[in-house]
Amino acid sequence: MNKTILLNSRPVGTPKLSDFKLVEKTVAKLSDGEVLLETKYISVDPYLRGRMNDQKLYIAPFQLNEPIQSGMIAEVITSKNENFKIGDFVSGMLNWQEYQISNGENLLKVDANKAKLSAYLGVLGMTGTTAYLGLLEIGKLKAGETIVVSGAAGAVGSVVGQIAKILGCRTVGIAGTQEKIDTLKNDYGFDEVINYKTTKNIKEAIAKACPNGVDVYWENVGGDISDAVHQNINKFGRIIVCGVISMYNKTKIPTGPRIERILITQSVLMQGFTVFNYIEKFPEAITQLTQWLNNGQLKHKETIIKGFENTPQAFLDLFEGKNNGKMIVEI
Amino acid sequence: MNKTILLNSRPVGTPKLSDFKLVEKTVAKLSDGEVLLETKYISVDPYLRGRMNDQKLYIAPFQLNEPIQSGMIAEVITSKNENFKIGDFVSGMLNWQEYQISNGENLLKVDANKAKLSAYLGVLGMTGTTAYLGLLEIGKLKAGETIVVSGAAGAVGSVVGQIAKILGCRTVGIAGTQEKIDTLKNDYGFDEVINYKTTKNIKEAIAKACPNGVDVYWENVGGDISDAVHQNINKFGRIIVCGVISMYNKTKIPTGPRIERILITQSVLMQGFTVFNYIEKFPEAITQLTQWLNNGQLKHKETIIKGFENTPQAFLDLFEGKNNGKMIVEI
Repeated sequence: MNKTILLNSRPVGTPKLSDFKLVEKTVAKLSDGEVLLETKYISVDPYLRGRMNDQKLYIAPFQLNEPIQSGMIAEVITSKNENFKIGDFVSGMLNWQEYQISNGENLLKVDANKAKLSAYLGVLGMTGTTAYLGLLEIGKLKAGETIVVSGAAGAVGSVVGQIAKILGCRTVGIAGTQEKIDTLKNDYGFDEVINYKTTKNIKEAIAKACPNGVDVYWENVGGDISDAVHQNINKFGRIIVCGVISMYNKTKIPTGPRIERILITQSVLMQGFTVFNYIEKFPEAITQLTQWLNNGQLKHKETIIKGFENTPQAFLDLFEGKNNGKMIVEI
Repeated sequence: MNKTILLNSRPVGTPKLSDFKLVEKTVAKLSDGEVLLETKYISVDPYLRGRMNDQKLYIAPFQLNEPIQSGMIAEVITSKNENFKIGDFVSGMLNWQEYQISNGENLLKVDANKAKLSAYLGVLGMTGTTAYLGLLEIGKLKAGETIVVSGAAGAVGSVVGQIAKILGCRTVGIAGTQEKIDTLKNDYGFDEVINYKTTKNIKEAIAKACPNGVDVYWENVGGDISDAVHQNINKFGRIIVCGVISMYNKTKIPTGPRIERILITQSVLMQGFTVFNYIEKFPEAITQLTQWLNNGQLKHKETIIKGFENTPQAFLDLFEGKNNGKMIVEI
């Protein structure tokens, strides 16, 4: 049979397992132009939380009793579409479903010989391109500058830190467990690391880790951590607002110190974005990322959860910081 | 004698008259290369409040028992500098002093035949260039877009609204007195106006005034007004953070709803700046502003206070919104 995971209820605050529902679905008959896909890997990402609210963001909300969608890797197991043959692997925004039919639109073929398949959901997929394009298009990083990355051990943050290092910057990573701190230092080559859970005065810790101040702040987290970074930002600093995982499950908009004065006195740019704003630059980004990955300059970690039915739990674990690197479900 | 106004004490919160001290000073003898200036007009501006704190901003803080400085227009009454002759009018960052000596550095000659002298402190000076360069360099305004301006009747806001109108935008101005609201409508041609003091639900008022949403928000004020605008911002919106007069006199950084989620979901740019970031574009800006002024497309109002000794009170009045247009002291 064909399992699928539906949105059972819109989460209030932190999502619960009961907000999801596992059901069995039959697969329709293949029409001309279509392919039948078997799911291999599912990407779970913090931004999906936003689509669970009944609110139009940059992308339509999920519908109740309809499948959740996210970035996935699947294998073509039957094809009536001349562009795809049996055995092709593809990535795309697909339904949380073991098998599904696609007309081939917006499916991207991925090459299992160039990188392992799951990498196309992370370092060579949405999180890697987010890091690359955010840094270059918004951050306009220059060699010798200092960048602070929150959520530095996450799927995006870890790539951000490594690219910044490749570009000749001083990299300072913030994370919340000793294991992640070790990863930042030993695997991703961050120059300095700050464990926000064991550091009393984060503002001072950042000042110490950034003797020349903060030129670029990559925002993955939000809240107190960011306030501390903002207070160390340099003139003409750039704050790349990629995500605020600490805020996604709040039912009311959290309050914090108003940032306008810092923006004015330091002439700071603060820019929110999603990687889809730069869709025309994806090929350039993926080519560069693949090159860095294959020549060993770019490392990536994955937390792999096995079993289709564990997808909702893997998603929930993101908000507990249980992943070290990209969180992926393997079917 | 030669009166001068010193910083007597660093204001705590809202400045008081006793934070200033009027003293008499003698003028030194003129050396070669110097000019003796007689003050004609003094510009008082909200940003001066920042320089009264003991804190390095984009510009050094004022020193205790030293003269306050601001943009001023003066007449050359004695000259030992070949670049200036008696009767020349100049603008520059000068001391709050009736007479002073300058070596001519950073003095800009202004032409009393092209515009009235006080205009060089406002629409053709720092406030006008701030409006022009902020809109073009950061706002990248496109015809047909909607811009909301807070502090719209102020020296910067009124020019922002008019330039946006010249560029083909829908302009919505926010101000706090009926007199200012009338000025916005009748003199500056704003399409819609909102009196924030008599409007119960500003968010709804903005939604109504901006049926196509807000593409650009020019921030002069900060606080609740801005929160309401942010909630109406469009995808790819730009928030030009020029000033936050509601925050300058706070002894603690005020809190408010964290803005990161809006920046992300709408891919919004928020940029703080000072006009000195674009100093190489001043000639272009002043040429264009002078043309618009002289062909009647750009109107400007001034609140003129007479008497050198009233300069501190004129400055304090800014924070009460007592000016309608540029606040200037005439000597």
